Amino acid sequence: MTTLTSYKHFQQRINDYLAAKLDSLTINDPKLLAAMRYGLLSGGKRMRPYLAYITGEALHANLHDIDAISGALECIHAYSLLHDDLPAMDNDDLRRGKPTCHKAFDEASAILAGDALQTLAFDILANHSFSTNNSPSKFPLQVKLIQQLVRASGYQGMCGGQALDLAATDKAIPLSELETLHSLKTGALLQAAVLMPAECSEQVTSEHKKILSEYAQLIGLAYQVQDDIIDLTSTEEQLGKPVGSDLAANKSTYPALLGLQGAQDKAENLLQQALQALARLPYNTQSLADFATFIVQRSH
Amino acid sequence: MTTLTSYKHFQQRINDYLAAKLDSLTINDPKLLAAMRYGLLSGGKRMRPYLAYITGEALHANLHDIDAISGALECIHAYSLLHDDLPAMDNDDLRRGKPTCHKAFDEASAILAGDALQTLAFDILANHSFSTNNSPSKFPLQVKLIQQLVRASGYQGMCGGQALDLAATDKAIPLSELETLHSLKTGALLQAAVLMPAECSEQVTSEHKKILSEYAQLIGLAYQVQDDIIDLTSTEEQLGKPVGSDLAANKSTYPALLGLQGAQDKAENLLQQALQALARLPYNTQSLADFATFIVQRSH
Repeated sequence: MTTLTSYKHFQQRINDYLAAKLDSLTINDPKLLAAMRYGLLSGGKRMRPYLAYITGEALHANLHDIDAISGALECIHAYSLLHDDLPAMDNDDLRRGKPTCHKAFDEASAILAGDALQTLAFDILANHSFSTNNSPSKFPLQVKLIQQLVRASGYQGMCGGQALDLAATDKAIPLSELETLHSLKTGALLQAAVLMPAECSEQVTSEHKKILSEYAQLIGLAYQVQDDIIDLTSTEEQLGKPVGSDLAANKSTYPALLGLQGAQDKAENLLQQALQALARLPYNTQSLADFATFIVQRSH
Repeated sequence: MTTLTSYKHFQQRINDYLAAKLDSLTINDPKLLAAMRYGLLSGGKRMRPYLAYITGEALHANLHDIDAISGALECIHAYSLLHDDLPAMDNDDLRRGKPTCHKAFDEASAILAGDALQTLAFDILANHSFSTNNSPSKFPLQVKLIQQLVRASGYQGMCGGQALDLAATDKAIPLSELETLHSLKTGALLQAAVLMPAECSEQVTSEHKKILSEYAQLIGLAYQVQDDIIDLTSTEEQLGKPVGSDLAANKSTYPALLGLQGAQDKAENLLQQALQALARLPYNTQSLADFATFIVQRSH
């Protein structure tokens, strides 16, 4: 499969999985379910699921297990978008070219749907029948996956990063703080998208996990640098939201700190390091390499 | 120990546990940690933890395990208060006689601290060393507890109940809908406070769990009926918030549907049913009976 075919294939797979998951829920309040559906199924690049699937493939994990991991990651990502878009946070009216959840519904629904999507992430992991989980001695797998999702998504991860991001608004922060912020806000979940599938593989050593973690950190950072570049160089039509919104919000960005060329050089440098990390793994990591390249070359 | 001594003892125990838990966290943004601390440690009756501890005692569970269960329940309860108090939800300025979190900090901090407290609940369960969890075959315990917390707190439980509550504002709803609303919004978590400790006991049969669940449903409902009564009959000083706020918010209440005397009769009837359920259990359930009585007799 080409990268594009593979990407579309797994996008479809996770969309089907999440749609079926929502269909299976019994929720008394139809508006809550509708807002959860809006947040979870209104497009989205599905980069975290894609990364999880191709990591799972490379490490010979059972993709049925990766469905649950991808689903949980996407629930966390979706909840964070619903909350980050709120007037009290980033105050965004558009997301993926459509009204944000609190615009399409109302603020209370966006808050509650976000809350329920966070719970759903843990629901999925706690209730999935993992194929690598048949014997009692394997049961720690689910607990380990939940531990990793907690670390990546909570105060030590994504949520902590969003707090730093809010604190950094209207304030110039040095490069080192910007990197901490992004390694928490975006990097931690991308890292989980690589490390959680690694838990489902019998072959992966702790040395391999270290290298995978390094790869994930590098592409997480590269993703953010490229995101900042895109915010300046893309069109509103491509972005699905206004261009230059970071600048407008007085947020520190890589182009602001390094210049546009400096930021582009940094993204390229991170890509090369990520590819070097992959080369140290005894697996076919071509799709992971292609994904890293895609991250740095995407224009929206 | 008298009920009051026992209550104070376990209140202190959970306060110490939660304070130590927060002290142990590494959080980059000091404001996020401060808002979490404000939400989690600013008073509160600790009824869910108390119920979990006395259930654990009655069923001869290890109270070290109940620390984690109580801590997780209280994190969920605290997160729900931070979000429910927001202007877009119930718009409350006071909680326990102090400014609500979004008043003391700001809305973004209250949203994020709530999000992080939900994650912390799962963190606590996934990372606690359960004493009943030493052998590999016991590992499902943690997964089971997380499954129960998910069910009680998410769209099938508390969060779904809050959605129904918002939908019912400015609208008269029949008694049956009011009971569904409260059984989700308040009852589900109180039920978890009884059923999660039951998982930590070696002796509890599925029949016992059914009875415990019945007891928890009855006192959950009694709690809400009494809460509605208190909202009408208490003073602002006792309540820590304005009296009659349910009426002011046009919420359906038991006194509104049944009259004050009707609501008082209902609470008493629920209490008697709860006591009868307990009498069918082969444990010393005196403290659970006392707790049920306390719920119906409290005046604030």
